[in-house]
Amino acid sequence: MTTQLLTEQIQKKLSFLCVGLDSDLTKLPSQLRNRSDAQFAFNKAIIDATHDLAVSYKINTAFYESEGSMGYQALEQTIQYLHENYPNHFTIADAKRGDIGNTSTQYARAFFEKLPFDSVTVAPYMGRDSVEPFLQFPGKYAVLLALTSNQGAYDFQTLNYADKSLYEAVVATSRTWNGAERLMYVLGATKTDHLATIRALAPNAFFLVPGVGAQGGDLEAVFHAVANDDIGLLVNASRSIIFASSGDDYAKAARASALALQQQMKTLL
Amino acid sequence: MTTQLLTEQIQKKLSFLCVGLDSDLTKLPSQLRNRSDAQFAFNKAIIDATHDLAVSYKINTAFYESEGSMGYQALEQTIQYLHENYPNHFTIADAKRGDIGNTSTQYARAFFEKLPFDSVTVAPYMGRDSVEPFLQFPGKYAVLLALTSNQGAYDFQTLNYADKSLYEAVVATSRTWNGAERLMYVLGATKTDHLATIRALAPNAFFLVPGVGAQGGDLEAVFHAVANDDIGLLVNASRSIIFASSGDDYAKAARASALALQQQMKTLL
Repeated sequence: MTTQLLTEQIQKKLSFLCVGLDSDLTKLPSQLRNRSDAQFAFNKAIIDATHDLAVSYKINTAFYESEGSMGYQALEQTIQYLHENYPNHFTIADAKRGDIGNTSTQYARAFFEKLPFDSVTVAPYMGRDSVEPFLQFPGKYAVLLALTSNQGAYDFQTLNYADKSLYEAVVATSRTWNGAERLMYVLGATKTDHLATIRALAPNAFFLVPGVGAQGGDLEAVFHAVANDDIGLLVNASRSIIFASSGDDYAKAARASALALQQQMKTLL
Repeated sequence: MTTQLLTEQIQKKLSFLCVGLDSDLTKLPSQLRNRSDAQFAFNKAIIDATHDLAVSYKINTAFYESEGSMGYQALEQTIQYLHENYPNHFTIADAKRGDIGNTSTQYARAFFEKLPFDSVTVAPYMGRDSVEPFLQFPGKYAVLLALTSNQGAYDFQTLNYADKSLYEAVVATSRTWNGAERLMYVLGATKTDHLATIRALAPNAFFLVPGVGAQGGDLEAVFHAVANDDIGLLVNASRSIIFASSGDDYAKAARASALALQQQMKTLL
């Protein structure tokens, strides 16, 4: 789906919530953990319980790869389930890929052709020819890391060269790349001081903002720093929603946690 | 295996060759392509034909992910085959991962626990806490991107801040991280002007140098710029070896191509 449709969904649902399916097998409720399809069964229940409150789902590939090809199958089943049942939700493969051109093309094929994701997160370190292959797939989006939510963001992303930080260079330079109209950016909710700077560099782009919830970011501060006329903002919460309860009521608890965020979003909108 | 053992193998075989298994299904010999285990069958034949000439194998995860869970199974079978039959070869998951700490730990588990890789390539953009989780696995290595072989390397990696390039900052800063004695670095063979600078920053580290072969890097220039007393160097060739022939003689042609590189390496050593 397109970001135009995403904006419509945000306005309709009064929500810019993305639910992150960081479905660590070892943290799943005990009644699910021993099922051969545990990760998919868990995701399905979470999705069914939150779909009317969320406009997007983000699948963190690490939590599936760590279970090998069985985990990869759960990832396939999850994105297929979303694609077939909730086609109006914007789907993100949170994979942070990026490599030389012919390899990036393979990653793009993995997420856009073999799997029906709308977008994939991409690391900028290798530059233009590592990112553009993701933008060559019509109607698909690349979500470029700009300023991430972790402490390590201060190691390189905020280094100043000439008069700009590296993260500013990444955003500004990437605006000139082929297909840049389908570039989105990852900005950590824990870095609110920097968010307005990035919005100024990419006034119309959609931002994916993780770090609200378990990582401690402030939803209201994020909204005021970056929302534009089209909202242009997805706020992701993962652990605080999907692991709201470790008991039998996990789906209900996930819904309650998602609802609390959606209610805050509604007020802001 | 350790880099100490890798150095011994280099000295014994007079080779610092790493064969890259970028086994794009669409480029496999036609007699293999329709087999359900095509990628693994191809890799097995390439490995069996080159193992005495190479000291390392690098599996590029993109070319397996692009075939979905079936591809992921071929990746599993390949690393398992290497682990069981060629335990003296240093194995690299060329995955270029990196994320916030708890996610990087999951990637590390995927490659070091679920699969028996010796090392994984890691992107530096997200900083210390995105890389250290890979170094917390005893006896395992992280191969950090420093200066890559592609044109896009000049977008950000060579930007100067204060008196250093970003890639220099990445190498210098990463030397202070926990487990840095098990950090290796990716340097592109196409960037020979910069290689000595990086060697000076990490005198004892192993370097993984792709870009010889299809990408046009110069083996001799690379060797003279970065070899240290322990050699400290793996040169990777992928397409120029594995796709040396697209006919029935693909394994024989791969061996001939690997042999030509090994003979050059022998002269240099």
